[in-house]
Amino acid sequence: MTLSIAILGSSGYAGGELIRLVDGHPDFEIEYLGAHSSAGRTLSSVHPHLGGGERVLGVNEPGEVPDVDLAFLALPHGASSGPAMALLSRGIRVVDLGSDFRLDTPDRYLEAYGVDHPYPDELGNWVYGLPERHRSEISGTDRVASPGCYPTSTILPLAPLLAAGLVRSTGIIVDSMSGVSGAGRGVQAGLQFGAVDESAKAYKVLEHRHQPEMERALDLASADPVQLVFTPHLVPMQRGILTTIYAPAREGTSLDDLVGALEDAYRDEPFVSIVDRSPETRWVVGSNRALISVHLDERTGTAVLICAIDNLVKGAAGQAVQAANLMMGLDETAGLPMEGWMP
Amino acid sequence: MTLSIAILGSSGYAGGELIRLVDGHPDFEIEYLGAHSSAGRTLSSVHPHLGGGERVLGVNEPGEVPDVDLAFLALPHGASSGPAMALLSRGIRVVDLGSDFRLDTPDRYLEAYGVDHPYPDELGNWVYGLPERHRSEISGTDRVASPGCYPTSTILPLAPLLAAGLVRSTGIIVDSMSGVSGAGRGVQAGLQFGAVDESAKAYKVLEHRHQPEMERALDLASADPVQLVFTPHLVPMQRGILTTIYAPAREGTSLDDLVGALEDAYRDEPFVSIVDRSPETRWVVGSNRALISVHLDERTGTAVLICAIDNLVKGAAGQAVQAANLMMGLDETAGLPMEGWMP
Amino acid sequence: MTLSIAILGSSGYAGGELIRLVDGHPDFEIEYLGAHSSAGRTLSSVHPHLGGGERVLGVNEPGEVPDVDLAFLALPHGASSGPAMALLSRGIRVVDLGSDFRLDTPDRYLEAYGVDHPYPDELGNWVYGLPERHRSEISGTDRVASPGCYPTSTILPLAPLLAAGLVRSTGIIVDSMSGVSGAGRGVQAGLQFGAVDESAKAYKVLEHRHQPEMERALDLASADPVQLVFTPHLVPMQRGILTTIYAPAREGTSLDDLVGALEDAYRDEPFVSIVDRSPETRWVVGSNRALISVHLDERTGTAVLICAIDNLVKGAAGQAVQAANLMMGLDETAGLPMEGWMP
Amino acid sequence: MTLSIAILGSSGYAGGELIRLVDGHPDFEIEYLGAHSSAGRTLSSVHPHLGGGERVLGVNEPGEVPDVDLAFLALPHGASSGPAMALLSRGIRVVDLGSDFRLDTPDRYLEAYGVDHPYPDELGNWVYGLPERHRSEISGTDRVASPGCYPTSTILPLAPLLAAGLVRSTGIIVDSMSGVSGAGRGVQAGLQFGAVDESAKAYKVLEHRHQPEMERALDLASADPVQLVFTPHLVPMQRGILTTIYAPAREGTSLDDLVGALEDAYRDEPFVSIVDRSPETRWVVGSNRALISVHLDERTGTAVLICAIDNLVKGAAGQAVQAANLMMGLDETAGLPMEGWMP
Repeated sequence: MTLSIAILGSSGYAGGELIRLVDGHPDFEIEYLGAHSSAGRTLSSVHPHLGGGERVLGVNEPGEVPDVDLAFLALPHGASSGPAMALLSRGIRVVDLGSDFRLDTPDRYLEAYGVDHPYPDELGNWVYGLPERHRSEISGTDRVASPGCYPTSTILPLAPLLAAGLVRSTGIIVDSMSGVSGAGRGVQAGLQFGAVDESAKAYKVLEHRHQPEMERALDLASADPVQLVFTPHLVPMQRGILTTIYAPAREGTSLDDLVGALEDAYRDEPFVSIVDRSPETRWVVGSNRALISVHLDERTGTAVLICAIDNLVKGAAGQAVQAANLMMGLDETAGLPMEGWMP
Repeated sequence: MTLSIAILGSSGYAGGELIRLVDGHPDFEIEYLGAHSSAGRTLSSVHPHLGGGERVLGVNEPGEVPDVDLAFLALPHGASSGPAMALLSRGIRVVDLGSDFRLDTPDRYLEAYGVDHPYPDELGNWVYGLPERHRSEISGTDRVASPGCYPTSTILPLAPLLAAGLVRSTGIIVDSMSGVSGAGRGVQAGLQFGAVDESAKAYKVLEHRHQPEMERALDLASADPVQLVFTPHLVPMQRGILTTIYAPAREGTSLDDLVGALEDAYRDEPFVSIVDRSPETRWVVGSNRALISVHLDERTGTAVLICAIDNLVKGAAGQAVQAANLMMGLDETAGLPMEGWMP
Repeated sequence: MTLSIAILGSSGYAGGELIRLVDGHPDFEIEYLGAHSSAGRTLSSVHPHLGGGERVLGVNEPGEVPDVDLAFLALPHGASSGPAMALLSRGIRVVDLGSDFRLDTPDRYLEAYGVDHPYPDELGNWVYGLPERHRSEISGTDRVASPGCYPTSTILPLAPLLAAGLVRSTGIIVDSMSGVSGAGRGVQAGLQFGAVDESAKAYKVLEHRHQPEMERALDLASADPVQLVFTPHLVPMQRGILTTIYAPAREGTSLDDLVGALEDAYRDEPFVSIVDRSPETRWVVGSNRALISVHLDERTGTAVLICAIDNLVKGAAGQAVQAANLMMGLDETAGLPMEGWMP
Repeated sequence: MTLSIAILGSSGYAGGELIRLVDGHPDFEIEYLGAHSSAGRTLSSVHPHLGGGERVLGVNEPGEVPDVDLAFLALPHGASSGPAMALLSRGIRVVDLGSDFRLDTPDRYLEAYGVDHPYPDELGNWVYGLPERHRSEISGTDRVASPGCYPTSTILPLAPLLAAGLVRSTGIIVDSMSGVSGAGRGVQAGLQFGAVDESAKAYKVLEHRHQPEMERALDLASADPVQLVFTPHLVPMQRGILTTIYAPAREGTSLDDLVGALEDAYRDEPFVSIVDRSPETRWVVGSNRALISVHLDERTGTAVLICAIDNLVKGAAGQAVQAANLMMGLDETAGLPMEGWMP
């Protein structure tokens, strides 16, 4: 049985990666591709690396979407709630790669984004689409808010340690570096080759919108409310996130405890592995895997966690497909790359 | 029916790409992986981006290779002729990604490499494995010499024009630039990040061993002997070859003639496309496709051809798998990526 | 004696490099910086790498420029002729880094740019600012058209060989690759990191406006009119041009003849060196040097010339300062970097 | 008055940068260049970007060094103490860019490096060469241990806040990313272009030898012993360090307090600036400047400090020259670049 798929926002990097994964998926078939300024163009002119280049992009309007089984929304922040509600009302399942439904309460949303949510009653209805933490809820819903790339690389390592009470829920530092594709495909002076190549920088210091998302998701694992400081950095590469986390270990926590809690959490997970040397992003680029190493500084009592993912796969399109597989009752790994590319 | 595969030289870049493609191939299964200095190590320590990391690499000795259906050899120049002959004598088909059997006569080999070929009588028995030019011979043989990356990007655009008599066979300039993976994975001062990043250079000027291979293969298409000047360049990227060719057009040749000859040659080819703007290597990275554009400078009577491939896929592992598919009577496209990745 | 300098177009890459060189020049002092959309901003916000960041940029209007000794114009094509004439009429010397005055006749200009020149009578009055070829004319003029980056890397190697009659004036191929800064600092989709990094491409195939400039300048050296085919390529690096030239050698020309002609031409030149291995762009980045190697393919009778420069220094700002030094009667090397940086 | 200079270890990246700076220094002149495996080669073959390429490198033996005024040692760890003592005994001033004399006690050295120091009594005699913190000691000594690149980027932002009692001395996290030149010029598999490009990684997690150096230097500023966790990362660029520091603010500390303490410390410093947006490494590459931004997360009481330097200039060769200027009684800024290059 082939399931029909629509993708809105298909001209961006996450959209292109969704097309690539869905085209290679054994049970999915693209029936509609929507775009904003690229509507009316052929796929080959927008994503020359993809096959089926003669396909023409439609608009990002839900009314134009045919009666598909599931729609992926890869739209800018704030643009997906309307289309999502319209598609759901027609019985179309929705996986939203944007941030519109990632927070759980109107208050948290207001604090994070500075505006009221247009559908405040809806926030509680959406499932946070991290399969390794919320598999059963995802399997039973028709609406998934797919996690952000930075939060994925933070929640996967931290949640099991918080759940096991091995680290404190406050005093946590999350320091991430990302390739440029995480900033999207929009044309900006700060993303020109001459501005990015051979340089590193922090950005949105103390104001990144991913911090509330991280805390909300980690609160689900932690007995006490989680408080963390998050700094994203841009480094000159296309793909990949490397997140280094510093969490105060509770008295008596050993390195074996930390490794054990992570191994227990992910032993049966196809896409998450605990590795015994600190991972490099090139080991996961192109794949849906997350690699995690854990270290303990006994002198200061600090657990150091390092996580590598591909921001466009496990951090975006791959994770969305993984959730869609669950929603449709398919093998969770269907169509998802285990092997990346290197170099 | 699953066919069993051995790969010798599996620790290099081409070897890793072969593993990736064979692992994803519907009809092939790896039964043996050989390596030189990495023998005894696990796959995950050699190619951390690949799955099945617990597989252990064996040695590059043909005597250790089990009775597989086909062996890919990705060995250094000069190292494959011995193992190839040993495997063939046991009835194992061989696709050699190296250059040992790419030239057709002992004289040409001696001229190109400065030494006598160890199996001079064998040279005429091997098929040059460019499926778009030699499909039927590949289908009927058990021994294929897979083309080099630079020659692939040169022969595909030039051969149809020479065959149609639209360009002269002398006075041809081939100017190529390659990503660094083309130089292999060996550790060299000239391949350190500090020596490659942010720099471009020509190398082996007028002495590159790929020129005789190009001329030999083009002679098969041309009425007159082909003579060309080839300059390879190294540019700071991992994958991809862009080759720009300048060939004197014969009197009366029009741009339509050039486009027509190429379209005729490749209309039904799954992996070669004629495009109407000059191609970029990022359009093909990760895929087995070759993209070609053609231009005519009427003022000087010069045909300009531009070809983009991924040196590790269509220029190495993908092309070898394509030939193996033909040798085994499979769908020629089985297991081969049409879609690359970008960015 | 300190000479006062104005720079119009100071917010771009060439403008920034001019500021850097003039700030470090023993005899020059910046008195005015003009800009277009960045007018009114501080230098530190436009070029954070430069000192004196509190300087405020003015407009690109000649009427606002004080009575300086010399003005550098680093303006977009077509924008410099008006300001140049206005400044000259006030007795201010002008070095134009743009292409408005690089061609010598209205006809050649019309053919190259498709429009009539606004000051056709002026074209013959400007000196082409390549000191190694036109030193005395530069010393005696108040108006210099500074060469483009690609032409500089082409004329320096070719002109002496044409002048000595060692290579033919037709059938010449010029194949160049450039870092991204050559395309300027304007924000474009094609210059985003995601579009440039890890990719190579040709652009403006057979339509690049630098070809007529090359032919015009080479005609001055050659007994017969020069005809060449030029293809520029973009490679993923910031600075540097590597040009590979193929020129048919005249009967009887030896490699010694070629080396000798180049050595004779540049023996006393501080910024041009003939090197015995093909040069890499990283050897010249940051410096005003040009490195040239020459090779002869005796089989086909083809001279191969390779030239490396920094497109922003010898290809733009450095060359302009070199000309200005001559115009002002200073030591030609004053303020010009002999040493680049690496890595 | 020209002072004569020797450089041992001149073939590496720091050595090359020292040559570049000393060649451009108004009062210094190189009299001897030593190298290890490159001894006997010309400078142009080792550092093709430098002028005076006909200079021949000698050996790294102090006995071969003529009677110069000052010697810079850019030798591997453990290799400089012997030559340093030999040169000092001849009355030659020494600036050691290595780590042999950066720690103050034999115990601290033993703990950091696992071996006894060969000259334990000497450790207390050397001055830690960070001019902004130890100017007067540097001016009065003949032996300076020049700080490491990571420590420089950590001590400059942190020391004034610790000295002012605005942040706690424990619970500090130092998270750094460095360009590849920081790892030196030695040929290693992990530094090949294919291993570094398009990837990010942490390395030497919890075992980096720079942490004791940081703590030792910060102890000099702090009332209480400093304890920090340091993680270095490698990102795909040549030069530049970006360090992000998280320090618990003491009760009642405001952002104004933090900014004020830093402004007070560096107001008159030519090479250190407090900036009001988080700095990018490309703003300082090629210059001797350090840029610092400071932020306060009031919710968690965390001060966030970001510092950008060029690891080869302010983090190595530039800082060494700055100290040498002080030792010789020269203008501290002589020969040191304020302006870097971009792009």
